[in-house]
Order: sequence, then C-alpha cells, then structure tokens
Amino acid sequence: MTPAEQAVLAANEAFYTAFAERDPQAMDHLWAKRASVACIHPGWNPLRGREPVMASWRAIFSGPGSPQISCSRATAYVSGESAFVICIEHVPGSLLVATNLFTREDGEWRMIHHHAGGLAEPLDDVEPPHGTVH
Amino acid sequence: MTPAEQAVLAANEAFYTAFAERDPQAMDHLWAKRASVACIHPGWNPLRGREPVMASWRAIFSGPGSPQISCSRATAYVSGESAFVICIEHVPGSLLVATNLFTREDGEWRMIHHHAGGLAEPLDDVEPPHGTVH
Repeated sequence: MTPAEQAVLAANEAFYTAFAERDPQAMDHLWAKRASVACIHPGWNPLRGREPVMASWRAIFSGPGSPQISCSRATAYVSGESAFVICIEHVPGSLLVATNLFTREDGEWRMIHHHAGGLAEPLDDVEPPHGTVH
Repeated sequence: MTPAEQAVLAANEAFYTAFAERDPQAMDHLWAKRASVACIHPGWNPLRGREPVMASWRAIFSGPGSPQISCSRATAYVSGESAFVICIEHVPGSLLVATNLFTREDGEWRMIHHHAGGLAEPLDDVEPPHGTVH
C-alpha cells in the first residue's frame, strides 16, 4: 500500500469515527472547504453543496435514528490529488456498501462525496468489526 | 457550465447509451485502461478491478434482466483530471441514484467507478426522460 493510500484510508476511518461518535465538528472538518461536495445517504435524494450536506449530518446526529456504524473491507484508489474508497458499512441488523470520495486540500485528504446504499447479497465471510472502525 | 463539466456529462451520457444499447464494446471503451476501476451494481458486492467489472457488464447485457435504463438530473463535479457525476437512473418501475467517477486518460474522460443503488424517497417533480439519456 502506498503512503497516499494509507492517508486516504486514515481519512476514511476518521469519517466513520466522526459518524459513530456523532461529532458534528469533526464531520465538518473532514469535508472539503473549497471543492464542491455532495452526499447520497441511503435511499435519500442526492444532496448537492456543502450546506445541505452539513445540515444532513447535524440532523442525523441529533435524531433518534443515528446508527451505530463501523466500516470494513476499505479499499483506496488514489489518482493524483483525488481518491475514492469503497467499503462495507456495518449498522445494526444490516450491511451497506459505500463509495467515499476525497480530494487533497491544504495537505489533507478531505471528503467531497459520500454515497451509501443497501447491500442485497449476503457476505458470507464478513465478520463485523468489534469496537473498531476498520 | 465549464467545458470540462460538459465533457464529463457527455461521457456520462455515453455510459448510459452503452448500457441501454447493451453494447459491450462501447462499455469497454468507456472504462479506464490504466487507472484502477471498481463497480457497485445495485445490491451487489463491490467489484474491484477491470476484469470483474467488464465481466459483470457482459453478464448483465447477455442476461434476460438487462434493464431499459435512462438518466436524468446529472450534475458533474470536476477537479483537475478527476470528476464525478451524480444522477438519477430510470428503470422500469423504479428510480435509482448513481455516482459515476471519471478520470482523464489520453485526453478522454473515462469511467473508473460506477455505484448505483435504490432511491427510497419519492421524487415528486422528476419526469422520466423520453427517448433520451439526459
């Protein structure tokens, strides 16, 4: 694994840590400040632009349905200053699959898009992570 | 819209044309040759690498369940040599939401990732396109 891939996976882990800890400040920091951003929560219409995306996280974190979430099987694909990660999300009772996009801003890998949705196929050999986000 | 955004949306349209026409050669041409690629079909486990992705398209196109598909509401986000598109996919009886990633290779925008999944929310104001892919 290259240093860039490691850095992107660390950013991806930080995303799931902020999500699991319902931390709006950490989540805000993780997302790009200058690049345009978007987000597709499971089953939702796409959200386009930083304000709707951040408002969605605040609403999710403050609501009763904010899931306990962790991530496994993350793979990073890096091309220059852009990268994406695909991974499996574990929430109580189900598995989701996610694509997370990142760009480098100010020397940090910051998120520009999150797309999560249902996983209909069984994953026989996937064990949910225990107490970790990777 | 910038020329790059227009070019990325044209590549996205070419993807849905190849999909709707079940054209494996066109689909193969659309995907990056050198960059690593991945694909998440609705409900499937992630496919990682060009061969599994291309094999999936051949299987979809040759099977009885290959959907009639078209795309609307495509928005392109370009950053240097990388770009992503979010759009709504129309298949008979349902709507899906997709994230499509592209990179520039040999002067062309080529696909490196496709992630499509269910859209649970109603889209009251979305009319399916009639005979077009945009």
